[in-house]
Amino acid sequence: MTSITCAGSIALDTTRTPFKTVERVLGGAASFFSIAASFFAPVHVCSVVGSDFPDEYWQLLAKKANLTGVQKKEGKTFFFDSTFSFDLYHRHANKTELNVLADFEPVLPEAAQQSEFIYLATMPPEKQLSVLKQAKNKKLAFMDTIEFYIKSERDALLKTIAAVDGVVLNDVEARMLTEEANLIKCGRKIHSFGPKIVILKKGEHGSILFYENKVIPFPAFPLEVIVDPTGAGDAFAGGFLGSLAKNLAHGSLLTAHGLKIAMAYANVMGSLAVEDFSVNRLANATNSEIERRFKEYCELLRI
Amino acid sequence: MTSITCAGSIALDTTRTPFKTVERVLGGAASFFSIAASFFAPVHVCSVVGSDFPDEYWQLLAKKANLTGVQKKEGKTFFFDSTFSFDLYHRHANKTELNVLADFEPVLPEAAQQSEFIYLATMPPEKQLSVLKQAKNKKLAFMDTIEFYIKSERDALLKTIAAVDGVVLNDVEARMLTEEANLIKCGRKIHSFGPKIVILKKGEHGSILFYENKVIPFPAFPLEVIVDPTGAGDAFAGGFLGSLAKNLAHGSLLTAHGLKIAMAYANVMGSLAVEDFSVNRLANATNSEIERRFKEYCELLRI
Repeated sequence: MTSITCAGSIALDTTRTPFKTVERVLGGAASFFSIAASFFAPVHVCSVVGSDFPDEYWQLLAKKANLTGVQKKEGKTFFFDSTFSFDLYHRHANKTELNVLADFEPVLPEAAQQSEFIYLATMPPEKQLSVLKQAKNKKLAFMDTIEFYIKSERDALLKTIAAVDGVVLNDVEARMLTEEANLIKCGRKIHSFGPKIVILKKGEHGSILFYENKVIPFPAFPLEVIVDPTGAGDAFAGGFLGSLAKNLAHGSLLTAHGLKIAMAYANVMGSLAVEDFSVNRLANATNSEIERRFKEYCELLRI
Repeated sequence: MTSITCAGSIALDTTRTPFKTVERVLGGAASFFSIAASFFAPVHVCSVVGSDFPDEYWQLLAKKANLTGVQKKEGKTFFFDSTFSFDLYHRHANKTELNVLADFEPVLPEAAQQSEFIYLATMPPEKQLSVLKQAKNKKLAFMDTIEFYIKSERDALLKTIAAVDGVVLNDVEARMLTEEANLIKCGRKIHSFGPKIVILKKGEHGSILFYENKVIPFPAFPLEVIVDPTGAGDAFAGGFLGSLAKNLAHGSLLTAHGLKIAMAYANVMGSLAVEDFSVNRLANATNSEIERRFKEYCELLRI
């Protein structure tokens, strides 16, 4: 059966918004991605947690994804403490403790090696490449990264980018990577680095899909109440790759139309993620509400 | 015949971008709006120019719109000198000389009074209200404003807002007017001030339409090369009101679908406006390229 393997961080997050603070809640790119993608296809997670990782969170993730590839190490789980600005647009990192993530060597178990869909969440680029090499049966591999690796490991990063089929970046990262101000130029330039699919995310301002010389803009699903933007981008990627995996598994070809459907599901999963802290809203979503929001989104856009 | 009356500024603009500077070119909200709207319906302009206003610009405008309501006064035309940031996102005003605009008293000639569609571009709110009162046959009136009047003439502005059917504002103005950070909340709050249609513009990030409890997001038409953002918002409004005027004139009712079509034309006209300095690109557009871009935009959004 077609499955998705996601390699990346599982974290404990302390998140401070102008309205509320939550402490040591389940976070990390792999958590958000996996839960979002799990609504569409089976997901294998490759990550690491420390001995302080709450069993409650382990059980929550285990209900959604296969955790055989999640290493349990002596020490503390990756910890991230951040504060959002009043408009929830800017985030200030107060504390980043890599802990067990610092020495993490991703190893894909046998079943995860067989996944046709691979998502390389933010990690050092050479570790992303290592995961990619272990994925023997890959059909479509996507990756994300952050400003830190664009600045400090540019060469290794460009090598990894050249090896994947798709890249998902936010606007700031894309501008930094390409040294272009105009996002359309950014997308085309990233295309020229290798990946045939490029997705640029602009948070509440939507996203842009680049595929075969097409530039397709998507607005964000409109939300009046945003509780916590943490994880929106990873949930977005989970909805996107999940939808692709589901459809391509049924023999569809990769088409602009299929990618648009995947972008719509990406927007739906991203919109769910921000409606509560941590993975709470995502984890409690139902297939029928995802379908309802998907239809609503498509209807909003149809002229 | 259904027509549109637009009251607002005609300007001479000196515009400095990182790539090129143009001096004393045709600008002003009424110029951009009228030329954009003229592709859809006859337009009457109510404005003022000074004795320095180049005949070449007068002829250009006269080809597109009825200028009977444009007063010619002794003195200088409204002059605006501004510099754009490297990413063309932020604009710094170097010089604003109101000149003949300072004492402008808008008077609608008989034909302009009969227009069913009214656009009140940025002016002091009591002058916008004065135009509205002269428009005896109005069916649908829209308005714009700027931060200056939100700060300095709030009460008069709220009175004008309560008197129109629709408001077109950018995100910064909407947040300042409503004191809300979330744009969906901004839109709903402006609804509660009176207007049944609210449009919030976010520049390259698109726009949001609020109508009958619906919140409909639109991405901007994707452009790789933006030459000069000046006038994009007014061209956007011209495409919007032009499309509405054209369709409602043929007996259509005001519907969410008709408003979506108008928003698509708004995006098309805004995208044309920024492809060259001044009104150059807009003025030289053809109906067939407008239709082509409209179809392309709708197709991009269809999932």
